[in-house]
Amino acid sequence: MPAMSLRGATEVRPVGDGRFEADIHPGWDIMGNANGGYLLAMVARAAAVTASKPDPVSVTGHFLAPGKPGPVTIVTDLVRTGRRFSTVTATMSTADRPMLTMVGSFADLGIGGGDDPVERHVTGPPHLPPPEDCVAVEPTETFPPPFVANVDLRIHPDDVPFVNGPTGRMVIRGWFRLPGDEPVDPFGLILAADAFPPSIFNGDLPVAWTPTLELTVHVRTRPSDAWYAVVVSTRFVTGGFLEEDAEVWDRSGRLVAQGRQLALVPTG
Amino acid sequence: MPAMSLRGATEVRPVGDGRFEADIHPGWDIMGNANGGYLLAMVARAAAVTASKPDPVSVTGHFLAPGKPGPVTIVTDLVRTGRRFSTVTATMSTADRPMLTMVGSFADLGIGGGDDPVERHVTGPPHLPPPEDCVAVEPTETFPPPFVANVDLRIHPDDVPFVNGPTGRMVIRGWFRLPGDEPVDPFGLILAADAFPPSIFNGDLPVAWTPTLELTVHVRTRPSDAWYAVVVSTRFVTGGFLEEDAEVWDRSGRLVAQGRQLALVPTG
Repeated sequence: MPAMSLRGATEVRPVGDGRFEADIHPGWDIMGNANGGYLLAMVARAAAVTASKPDPVSVTGHFLAPGKPGPVTIVTDLVRTGRRFSTVTATMSTADRPMLTMVGSFADLGIGGGDDPVERHVTGPPHLPPPEDCVAVEPTETFPPPFVANVDLRIHPDDVPFVNGPTGRMVIRGWFRLPGDEPVDPFGLILAADAFPPSIFNGDLPVAWTPTLELTVHVRTRPSDAWYAVVVSTRFVTGGFLEEDAEVWDRSGRLVAQGRQLALVPTG
Repeated sequence: MPAMSLRGATEVRPVGDGRFEADIHPGWDIMGNANGGYLLAMVARAAAVTASKPDPVSVTGHFLAPGKPGPVTIVTDLVRTGRRFSTVTATMSTADRPMLTMVGSFADLGIGGGDDPVERHVTGPPHLPPPEDCVAVEPTETFPPPFVANVDLRIHPDDVPFVNGPTGRMVIRGWFRLPGDEPVDPFGLILAADAFPPSIFNGDLPVAWTPTLELTVHVRTRPSDAWYAVVVSTRFVTGGFLEEDAEVWDRSGRLVAQGRQLALVPTG
């Protein structure tokens, strides 16, 4: 299946009263379930319309049921309109049941903050060879999943869990781009924060899948590059849960987005 | 003002149809605005009733207006009931306006996960002298704020920004306890994740306050200690925002909760 643009695949159609119609497109799935970042980007796009602000600043989605291809409805509710931030809740549902519920604050990231009078990065971007020297992730029927046909992922040669086996270090570094050089907007950063294989696959633990309970993405600035350096990592597997953190960096060495998700650790 | 129990200060009274009445109590404020973790704990307590599950697993609050002492209403909405998790949205409002909106998933953390067949901690708890050798944080009219009378905070002697000046390292390590040995339940962990002074106060940057836009707390397990070791840290100050991460550890060296907030960096 040829790559579909993220913009096309997350299109939402307002039908009045804060309601939107949309479609979960085929090909964005992992083992039959749509990628969480893709779904959250779609819901955030609808919520931004209701917020009357262009950019997601902080969005959190709770995943309630697997996303299968087909029509969905997104119901948004404007909780507060502010001068700088507006906050919206939204729920995406099929005809049968709710699938994803979100809370997010939206702003115009083109206004203010751009001068960065106070700026500090304690740690820097991941060390990565250029994209052409990394390992391109090609889709298969199972793993890597069909979803990766819609993103251009290049993984650091040292971090590829499905080539040489787990590294023992729960970190995956790589490059993210949208195919066909589609510009990455802030909604694309939501996808970038959830596009890589789970870093626990490098952890030498008996974990084959990690369903996401909740994903939060913070967008710091409007992106302007084609390629983004991403690092995903897990530090704590305990209580039947793990967190996966994502950092998304532009090529100037600036953090543009951060993600954190809480996932389940199914065993047995 | 004597310390008030967290349980008393976050009491919520159901009035039917998923609505609750509650009070923001005086003395929980920082420069006149109630602590965000305190408010989120209160909203989560109401949401857990609606979820019919005892424990918050992942809760996210967006802060819409400062919390002043006085009566509030919390309106909750059950988005999904599941066997293991139930998901609720909730908004706390004064008579005038919404103050805090939340999405959270709730479970019974006493069921499952407790055996931890898969467990990994990549990093450990913060290195801390015993509580009696740390610096007790005493409330003042300004900073440290009145709020700290309601929590027992002991900061690592090397990390106290308001004694020797900023350390230059945006990290604060310390112990957290509720006064009078009130047991810390999972709602108390929400407070613990937002109780310490902002780590940016150790950053030698011209930032005097950091209003929180959003706070997410993950609770991994039901706590059972009196004292918890906490580390708060900031790595990225950029785009006019900073993240503050919190880890809450029990005395057996197990991570019990994680927090991340997105805060504004006001300048000028």
